[in-house]
Amino acid sequence: MSNPFFNNTGPYKIDFLLEKIDLKIINKDINVTDIKDLFTASNGNITFFHSRKYSEFAKKTKASFCITNSSLKHLLPKSCIPIISDNILFTTSKITEIFYPDSVNDNFDDTVQNIEKTKYKEKVKLGKNILIGNNVKIGQNCSIGHNTIIEKNVEIGDNCSLGSNVIIRNSILKNNVHVLDGCVIGKKGFGFLPSQNKNIRYPQIGMVLIGDNCEIGCNSTIDRGSLSDTIIGRNTFLDNQIHIAHNVKIGDNCIIAGQVGFAGSSIIGDNVMIGGQAGVSGHLKIGNNVHIAGGSGVIKSISDNSKVMGYPAKELKKFLKDNK
Amino acid sequence: MSNPFFNNTGPYKIDFLLEKIDLKIINKDINVTDIKDLFTASNGNITFFHSRKYSEFAKKTKASFCITNSSLKHLLPKSCIPIISDNILFTTSKITEIFYPDSVNDNFDDTVQNIEKTKYKEKVKLGKNILIGNNVKIGQNCSIGHNTIIEKNVEIGDNCSLGSNVIIRNSILKNNVHVLDGCVIGKKGFGFLPSQNKNIRYPQIGMVLIGDNCEIGCNSTIDRGSLSDTIIGRNTFLDNQIHIAHNVKIGDNCIIAGQVGFAGSSIIGDNVMIGGQAGVSGHLKIGNNVHIAGGSGVIKSISDNSKVMGYPAKELKKFLKDNK
Amino acid sequence: MSNPFFNNTGPYKIDFLLEKIDLKIINKDINVTDIKDLFTASNGNITFFHSRKYSEFAKKTKASFCITNSSLKHLLPKSCIPIISDNILFTTSKITEIFYPDSVNDNFDDTVQNIEKTKYKEKVKLGKNILIGNNVKIGQNCSIGHNTIIEKNVEIGDNCSLGSNVIIRNSILKNNVHVLDGCVIGKKGFGFLPSQNKNIRYPQIGMVLIGDNCEIGCNSTIDRGSLSDTIIGRNTFLDNQIHIAHNVKIGDNCIIAGQVGFAGSSIIGDNVMIGGQAGVSGHLKIGNNVHIAGGSGVIKSISDNSKVMGYPAKELKKFLKDNK
Repeated sequence: MSNPFFNNTGPYKIDFLLEKIDLKIINKDINVTDIKDLFTASNGNITFFHSRKYSEFAKKTKASFCITNSSLKHLLPKSCIPIISDNILFTTSKITEIFYPDSVNDNFDDTVQNIEKTKYKEKVKLGKNILIGNNVKIGQNCSIGHNTIIEKNVEIGDNCSLGSNVIIRNSILKNNVHVLDGCVIGKKGFGFLPSQNKNIRYPQIGMVLIGDNCEIGCNSTIDRGSLSDTIIGRNTFLDNQIHIAHNVKIGDNCIIAGQVGFAGSSIIGDNVMIGGQAGVSGHLKIGNNVHIAGGSGVIKSISDNSKVMGYPAKELKKFLKDNK
Repeated sequence: MSNPFFNNTGPYKIDFLLEKIDLKIINKDINVTDIKDLFTASNGNITFFHSRKYSEFAKKTKASFCITNSSLKHLLPKSCIPIISDNILFTTSKITEIFYPDSVNDNFDDTVQNIEKTKYKEKVKLGKNILIGNNVKIGQNCSIGHNTIIEKNVEIGDNCSLGSNVIIRNSILKNNVHVLDGCVIGKKGFGFLPSQNKNIRYPQIGMVLIGDNCEIGCNSTIDRGSLSDTIIGRNTFLDNQIHIAHNVKIGDNCIIAGQVGFAGSSIIGDNVMIGGQAGVSGHLKIGNNVHIAGGSGVIKSISDNSKVMGYPAKELKKFLKDNK
Repeated sequence: MSNPFFNNTGPYKIDFLLEKIDLKIINKDINVTDIKDLFTASNGNITFFHSRKYSEFAKKTKASFCITNSSLKHLLPKSCIPIISDNILFTTSKITEIFYPDSVNDNFDDTVQNIEKTKYKEKVKLGKNILIGNNVKIGQNCSIGHNTIIEKNVEIGDNCSLGSNVIIRNSILKNNVHVLDGCVIGKKGFGFLPSQNKNIRYPQIGMVLIGDNCEIGCNSTIDRGSLSDTIIGRNTFLDNQIHIAHNVKIGDNCIIAGQVGFAGSSIIGDNVMIGGQAGVSGHLKIGNNVHIAGGSGVIKSISDNSKVMGYPAKELKKFLKDNK
């Protein structure tokens, strides 16, 4: 799915990029067209490689350039020119920012106008004081509540409803999606490079994708992805006050109760049920048909069909036995 | 208390209802006036009976019809005609929806107008951009903050204040109630029949009732009941970011700290104190004068005058001893 | 820092105050200029002393009067006249309310107007429908999103951004502060004297102070202090849905993940990292460079450089060993 939210300002000459970020130029007159991860990068792109965990992807990357360090560079294919950096993530962040200068902060969309002044006045069932940005797409038979803000380029399918006081940006909603009052969807993730006195915000150029038939409960927050997207599968229902961090991917037919939170980049399978106030740490894989009891704290990946409870979450039967 | 929020579109002939939901008609020319639970149903009503847990109520029900199954029907009195269904809750949901077609979704109230155009312009201390629906009742000496939305038929007593950015619907507030900024009160509960590809929303025709002298903290969410009501007793104070699910009943003089969550249908006594981030599972009974320590996860009912802590919550002294 | 938000309506004669709250007058024609805590009170002020924990401060207080009881009064210096009360906190609350009558409730600011009508129309990058109170100060190069409310006397530094649907009052923001969508900052704390039938709200005359370079995530709530201030240090980043109660002080360079909650009056050091959904009880001291794992419940103070996990939180290595 193409990303309508961030405009790639490239291509840039490689030496222009290196000079901009105070790295040594390499005297090559080559265009760099985009920045991508190791797996999705193609010829002409720049990528980054900062951990041996990704060696397999590094060996096969099609990128023309790769930000890396001296101890990893030998793993890259010959077609990929290494760019050596002391701080790979910082350099990656800076180059992303050159390509996508609007991706670091989340200032409000100043293209919005009252929806009454747009073609949607007739097409959508409208509340009062709705603001809508440039180039928003809204399908048939939708309803939008009072004071809701839909920022530029957002796409909303057919038969959707947004509640009142909703803020939505950088997001694509399929059909029959219901977003309830007070949600904030698509803001930048909590991603930055910590630094004394002034943290460095990491660019966040991903989207939020919400599948058919989903429901998102009141006052929930769903952050957009950084380089990949945050995804909610088909027919997944979220209760109130849920927090979903950047890059999280949730499967189909999940049921997630109130005040549950997900740290960044975890992947949740299909048909997963999660009780209220449970939390899932970052970078985990939760299998299909998993049940997580309310209040649990999940700090390890969970295989398919498991039932877990506790903090740290363990097999449900074991938890109940241990706590008799 | 009569419910001013949902309009009963009945009566309907029993065979009309059965035909509508693809059940076998019974060739009786009898009117059905309403759908109620086993206990509150009266002559002319239809009810449902899906678990032996409710056998005592079933034996005494005054309903004229009861959706049930073959193994339970013999428990009904002779005055009550069984309607056999493979999926009792689904059939109940469908019939509720016929009587109360507006009860399934929570689209914004399109009767609202700026309060400056109503009689409340002079009577209430008003912020800016307040929206108010048809037939809202507001008592003496009230104050309403900016951007707040009060949907149709809501009733607010004397000496109440609503903060800014509040959304309130399907609710009745007594006197001297304070609802702080950003609350969403009275939206439909998180109730549905899970189904692959497209969950089936269960109708939610209950209200939220808030007693005298209560305070509800910022960004909290209180869902209305499904068939019964969600109730907050007199002089109960809630801190910020609290979530109260449908049908929960909280007693008088309770103190509930920030980020606490209640799953559906639990009943909390009087003079209960609950520390921050604690969670209470569904369908529990918490007695009077109970203290629940912050962070606790309560998964069993608690008797009067107990002090508990932990996850799962246990007697406070035991918890402290176990965790020395 | 002087507090621009609450107007001291004093001085009052001591006998006027005592008569107002039904205490015995002392027949002294002396002015009382303000109410302060034992430590900050100066000559002419009234203070209160209700627990031996504060004996050292009591012995040295410069206050002219002190609300206390018979068993504590002998600890006061001769220069301080004891005012004996059966209910010290209640009496203190009542006298605070006489000096600061607006400090008990949080009714919306009725001085606000649309920012388009003010000098900030040209000076600030503005969204739609922004409301701004009297005497608000906004620095250079700021951005304010749609529907945001900035109440009277709030001060905002240079290069700050407020998101949309933000409510801010009784707060001072330094430079380069980012407050994201849906936050409520500066409302009164959850402080009151419990009383059957009608709790007595405790006056809350503190502020929220947010240091340079901070970020506050979406739908978070930060309450102002009661007698002291709630403080967020420099370059501290908060994720979404965080709750910070009154009088909490957080240091510099902290990183606090989603849905974390702090009960009142805790003091958090510098460079502290806290994982998602962790909770910190009230009146604790968390040292510098502390790491608190996600989901932890902290109920004791933590010394510098510790890493903790669990509920109750304990040393990280011990937690991991105990839970193998």
